[in-house]
Amino acid sequence: MPISRFVEYEDAPPDVRAVYDDIMATRQVDCINNFWKALAQHPPTLARTWESLKQVMAQGALDPIVKEMLYVAVSIAHGCDYCVNSHTAAARKAGMTDAMLGELMTVAGMASETNALATAYQVELDDRLHVAARSGN
Amino acid sequence: MPISRFVEYEDAPPDVRAVYDDIMATRQVDCINNFWKALAQHPPTLARTWESLKQVMAQGALDPIVKEMLYVAVSIAHGCDYCVNSHTAAARKAGMTDAMLGELMTVAGMASETNALATAYQVELDDRLHVAARSGN
Amino acid sequence: MPISRFVEYEDAPPDVRAVYDDIMATRQVDCINNFWKALAQHPPTLARTWESLKQVMAQGALDPIVKEMLYVAVSIAHGCDYCVNSHTAAARKAGMTDAMLGELMTVAGMASETNALATAYQVELDDRLHVAARSGN
Amino acid sequence: MPISRFVEYEDAPPDVRAVYDDIMATRQVDCINNFWKALAQHPPTLARTWESLKQVMAQGALDPIVKEMLYVAVSIAHGCDYCVNSHTAAARKAGMTDAMLGELMTVAGMASETNALATAYQVELDDRLHVAARSGN
Amino acid sequence: MPISRFVEYEDAPPDVRAVYDDIMATRQVDCINNFWKALAQHPPTLARTWESLKQVMAQGALDPIVKEMLYVAVSIAHGCDYCVNSHTAAARKAGMTDAMLGELMTVAGMASETNALATAYQVELDDRLHVAARSGN
Amino acid sequence: MPISRFVEYEDAPPDVRAVYDDIMATRQVDCINNFWKALAQHPPTLARTWESLKQVMAQGALDPIVKEMLYVAVSIAHGCDYCVNSHTAAARKAGMTDAMLGELMTVAGMASETNALATAYQVELDDRLHVAARSGN
Repeated sequence: MPISRFVEYEDAPPDVRAVYDDIMATRQVDCINNFWKALAQHPPTLARTWESLKQVMAQGALDPIVKEMLYVAVSIAHGCDYCVNSHTAAARKAGMTDAMLGELMTVAGMASETNALATAYQVELDDRLHVAARSGN
Repeated sequence: MPISRFVEYEDAPPDVRAVYDDIMATRQVDCINNFWKALAQHPPTLARTWESLKQVMAQGALDPIVKEMLYVAVSIAHGCDYCVNSHTAAARKAGMTDAMLGELMTVAGMASETNALATAYQVELDDRLHVAARSGN
Repeated sequence: MPISRFVEYEDAPPDVRAVYDDIMATRQVDCINNFWKALAQHPPTLARTWESLKQVMAQGALDPIVKEMLYVAVSIAHGCDYCVNSHTAAARKAGMTDAMLGELMTVAGMASETNALATAYQVELDDRLHVAARSGN
Repeated sequence: MPISRFVEYEDAPPDVRAVYDDIMATRQVDCINNFWKALAQHPPTLARTWESLKQVMAQGALDPIVKEMLYVAVSIAHGCDYCVNSHTAAARKAGMTDAMLGELMTVAGMASETNALATAYQVELDDRLHVAARSGN
Repeated sequence: MPISRFVEYEDAPPDVRAVYDDIMATRQVDCINNFWKALAQHPPTLARTWESLKQVMAQGALDPIVKEMLYVAVSIAHGCDYCVNSHTAAARKAGMTDAMLGELMTVAGMASETNALATAYQVELDDRLHVAARSGN
Repeated sequence: MPISRFVEYEDAPPDVRAVYDDIMATRQVDCINNFWKALAQHPPTLARTWESLKQVMAQGALDPIVKEMLYVAVSIAHGCDYCVNSHTAAARKAGMTDAMLGELMTVAGMASETNALATAYQVELDDRLHVAARSGN
């Protein structure tokens, strides 16, 4: 049972319904996920979040499948069960195979381990890496 | 100044030196990052972590560039400055452009926002997404 | 099913019962939340935690409603479902409206996004902000 | 040294300069924080993030000072040093006194402790709290 | 319902079955936890993770009971419900009493509080502590 | 440069000085860490936090060395650099050897990895573990 009530399409005011219509048209689906129905209690958050997500996840220099896998990785690190499930589903829809899923998860696990080790030992950044992160050289 | 001393190549015992040699050969570099020099104080952790990382980050169903970007995304979420820098450098070396970097970071930011919103509203997972995450159908 | 058993009022030893009585008197309620019943397995933790919470959440320079909203914000960031629910309930009891709830959640989401972006880009703190954070000038 | 270069006003393309102008006009300041100069390497992220932040942090059902304190609380929980400093500075500018700062921080500390305890004991949510979080009743 | 299917012993390919046999022999149990059954969808991750865990958790300079309690503490901080439960169970099996459990949890709570306070106040590390952390002197 | 000023002993009001005296007497040291000097800007937080810490970290069912190592583990997971350093120093003072340090850190790393994997695969808790975590049977 979520905090605040889900806003169903048939009960939604026009501004919420317009966002729902755009979500369904953009994603070529015929229903709305609970996440959006929860946000719809605060319509400005619904509209702003959807506009941002649509822009961020569109085809760009990175393919949607890579973006969805990045989304899953961040959601694992934050322990957000809803987002792990919903973006794993989206990544699969975008073409992620079982082998890709397995590698995504193992990278997420490995990164978590070395993140902890770098913090545990309070490792100072190498000047060389600093430069390379910044400029690629 | 890190916790525990860095182990330099010239001071390293043979088991540590063997790992250092393998790191330099695998990555085709001629120096060792501080991270490994810190782990080398506990040689079993150095050996195990390097073997795992080498296996996890090798070419597989995902390209190394995608794996490095996933690594960066997790490191951002955990707030590990060392790893954000070192894996951004590695991703650039693997071919990540400025445009790809910009999109990686904006996806990491967006995911963090919706992770928080899904938690804030305690949104229940849609049965449909559960199934889709599991099976791709 | 929690780790460790809930300690019900009727089964509680006198030191636990005294804390329960103080919780009910302070909050003007007639039952004890599961959180306290779980802590009561280790009575010193129950007593110390309740004394601290009572002191911290009392009217001070900040109103209880603001304190409860801050509590919700931190609980969202840590992904603690129990605390998100219990302190959202407390904030509502203290007068938080639906509009205030909506803004609290959207701020929590936005902060999470820019936290991630500041880490992603490893932004150095402006000297000016350093000073202003410290002294208000 | 940040990942990616800061974009200074005099070097900025027109779309970035327009955002910088709006930031300075909205906040009534005459310089741009490093955070925005870092985001400006990816102009769509700069524009989107600023538009969102401006909308989210405006006067609404919550006062800007409360919003800034919520921002600080989330930033503490995520360990984002940049944001802790920049939003503490903003909260002070909005009127936060030393006493309010002290209480904000002690609430953030206390919430972190009970978040951990609720997770440690895996406390199940009371049905009563579920309902109260949702509806205020 | 987990992401990906559990691999049961009777359906497992030989490489997975070999890991399962080693888990049961090492731990002297006659069944396999869901965690391993989930990892088994990606056999290299199953094998690598089990080998690492077996090595890390063996008797060494620290007793297994201390290692299991450290595992619980980290799992609480990451909010991993599965791991909090499974490693609390393992710690109990290794001899952790109710009193030890109570103290473990109260330390985890207290550390979370002072972690937040040190971040909130952006406390600079004392040079003296730096040295003492590094060398024990 | 911390948020808020350090309160030095010679400038401290009597209530702060009394806490400082108790810290030095209890720990048998002759100076005060920056952490306490920062908290002293808000004397009730200083007094409450010190009383709690003193109680929590005293000899009990767990030895101080184990408690300090648990503290380090939690601090690693939260990425609190100050606390990683200060409690590593305290653990060394309590007798932690280099070998124990190495194992502490490798357990912290390993736990972080499996925490991520359990979340990644959304593994359901085994009923058996639930019971064992609760009761030790």
